[in-house]
Amino acid sequence: EIGLRYDLTVPFARVIGMNPNIKMPFKRYEIGKVFRNGPVKTGRSREFIQCDVDIVGVKSMMAEAELMIMAKDIYKMLELDIFISFNNRKLLSGIIKSIGISEELEGTVILSLDKLEKIGEEGVKSELESKGLTNENISKLFSIIMMKEEKLLERLRNNPPNELIRQGLKELDELIYYVEASNIKDICRFSPCLARGLEIYTGTVFEIFLADGSISSSLSGGGRYDKIIGAFLNNGGEYPAVGITFGLDVIHLALEHKNIERNMPAAQVYIIPLDTDSLSLNLATRLRRQGIPTDIEMNKRKLRKSLEYAGKQGIPFVIIVGEDEVKRGKVRIKNMKDGFETEIDLSKLELFFK
Amino acid sequence: EIGLRYDLTVPFARVIGMNPNIKMPFKRYEIGKVFRNGPVKTGRSREFIQCDVDIVGVKSMMAEAELMIMAKDIYKMLELDIFISFNNRKLLSGIIKSIGISEELEGTVILSLDKLEKIGEEGVKSELESKGLTNENISKLFSIIMMKEEKLLERLRNNPPNELIRQGLKELDELIYYVEASNIKDICRFSPCLARGLEIYTGTVFEIFLADGSISSSLSGGGRYDKIIGAFLNNGGEYPAVGITFGLDVIHLALEHKNIERNMPAAQVYIIPLDTDSLSLNLATRLRRQGIPTDIEMNKRKLRKSLEYAGKQGIPFVIIVGEDEVKRGKVRIKNMKDGFETEIDLSKLELFFK
Repeated sequence: EIGLRYDLTVPFARVIGMNPNIKMPFKRYEIGKVFRNGPVKTGRSREFIQCDVDIVGVKSMMAEAELMIMAKDIYKMLELDIFISFNNRKLLSGIIKSIGISEELEGTVILSLDKLEKIGEEGVKSELESKGLTNENISKLFSIIMMKEEKLLERLRNNPPNELIRQGLKELDELIYYVEASNIKDICRFSPCLARGLEIYTGTVFEIFLADGSISSSLSGGGRYDKIIGAFLNNGGEYPAVGITFGLDVIHLALEHKNIERNMPAAQVYIIPLDTDSLSLNLATRLRRQGIPTDIEMNKRKLRKSLEYAGKQGIPFVIIVGEDEVKRGKVRIKNMKDGFETEIDLSKLELFFK
Repeated sequence: EIGLRYDLTVPFARVIGMNPNIKMPFKRYEIGKVFRNGPVKTGRSREFIQCDVDIVGVKSMMAEAELMIMAKDIYKMLELDIFISFNNRKLLSGIIKSIGISEELEGTVILSLDKLEKIGEEGVKSELESKGLTNENISKLFSIIMMKEEKLLERLRNNPPNELIRQGLKELDELIYYVEASNIKDICRFSPCLARGLEIYTGTVFEIFLADGSISSSLSGGGRYDKIIGAFLNNGGEYPAVGITFGLDVIHLALEHKNIERNMPAAQVYIIPLDTDSLSLNLATRLRRQGIPTDIEMNKRKLRKSLEYAGKQGIPFVIIVGEDEVKRGKVRIKNMKDGFETEIDLSKLELFFK
């Protein structure tokens, strides 16, 4: 009776499907827990956190480009060097079709091709053999997909074997147009075998990897899923939709690998009351209302202990609120970087931190 | 085998209990889905969202005051007038004990008293009767708790009947000291019957209500739970902890009641490409990197339609990127409030929005 959600896309598609009055285009992000039913091991928890961004209502591949640009900016902020592999599912399906592989086998052939990076050419070939593909078809397939990317595209463009490929090429070319015009060109690679397993994708698929390959799993992945919402509404309609997901766990792992520690202090100011608890609490409130992240010593620790704590936390400023100073309308401010102390008027506290 | 979490406090207590090296005091907030097992009806969903803030490692009632001040600020931002009822569970337990009510009945008596607002004096009395309390004890109990708050406190202070009351008064007085010294005094009320049902609370309890009473459920509630973490560690130790929870659903309801619609536009700038898609996408990226929330027309709608959309969304500025202007190194910026249009240099775009 109770199920645990396994992704954020399906519930999102349901929300869109059930709210026909949502203004299109609709963009949203969501961060939430999802659960996997498959095997669990170190690094693969039953429960994990996904961060999704989706755009609904845009047919143009500009939407894909927007998500890719955003991803580049996010990974730049995280100081992780990445590259983006992209492909188009129509193109891949069209290639499989053009060889004469039956439609029923298409899905499973795609799943095998998707493993090319992981199990290599021979691995994929023997998988395809075991799935019942003829040797002729397998070698035909590989002669196409192992071509140099530019050569493959050129050949398909000159003589598109079927309508799916024509469509896929059109979408791919549109995406490449945006990719080349924007500042993500250097980190994007067309990868004709990329499929992203999931069957929900109808056009563009892309996947983001660490540039140095030190983690082989992708950090992000996404694509266009124009049929999910229509499937919910059971009306067969297409609702253009593109999404990207960020795997928080693998990103965390990548940051750990790089040994990136960000010592962002939780507070800019640490208030130490010396028998001036209630005034100090008011000062904290005043500073917080000015948007200055402020913490306050609440355990009546000695001044030395409190200063030590602020130092360890990397908090840049300490305000020492002593009774004597307060009587004179002053507080002491200590700059924790250079140790410099200064007395300022209580009334001018906010100004000091502006 | 699989359970759904019913609050954020217990998992948080477990995290603290299992990570003895966490630097104390530790403050955190968490927003997440929780699930109820009890009856479900309109406004009471199986799944709902809680927003919790907790402080662990502070014995001083300053921690409670800090959460209350924060709550006041949050509700001010939401434009909701509220008041805060507060009490101390030691005090309430001590009063019940002082009357001679047996310890086994204490919990259930507190649950009944907690309903005073909801079912009235007579309702509580008959509930207590059905629970086996003597009429004598019931009237003794009511003669105490129905006293004017100041009078009750005065009487208890002058002659505290037991150690629990002594302790409760000490904590309460400490809290009142902070409340009176800070700017939340006018919205705080001591409420000697408030218990907050849950047995986890060991000292302060508080609950936040809409000032106009238009919704009787509390919007927030919290208190001190010094024993939960020790219970997880099974060592009987006390780990000072205070928390507050914000009920997102009831807050949302309150905002709806007040008919508060916040037309915060999702973007400050809307870019309309007129056959300049890739350049426009680059401009959007440039502005976003400057922290300027920017949206972009992606569906090749006509200029008029696009302007209409931006207007309806309340987006203050539109950038029209036409081919002719771009050739001259310019774009048009339209101020959607006064309709004023101006042409500026492409190179000076960021400056315009600073």
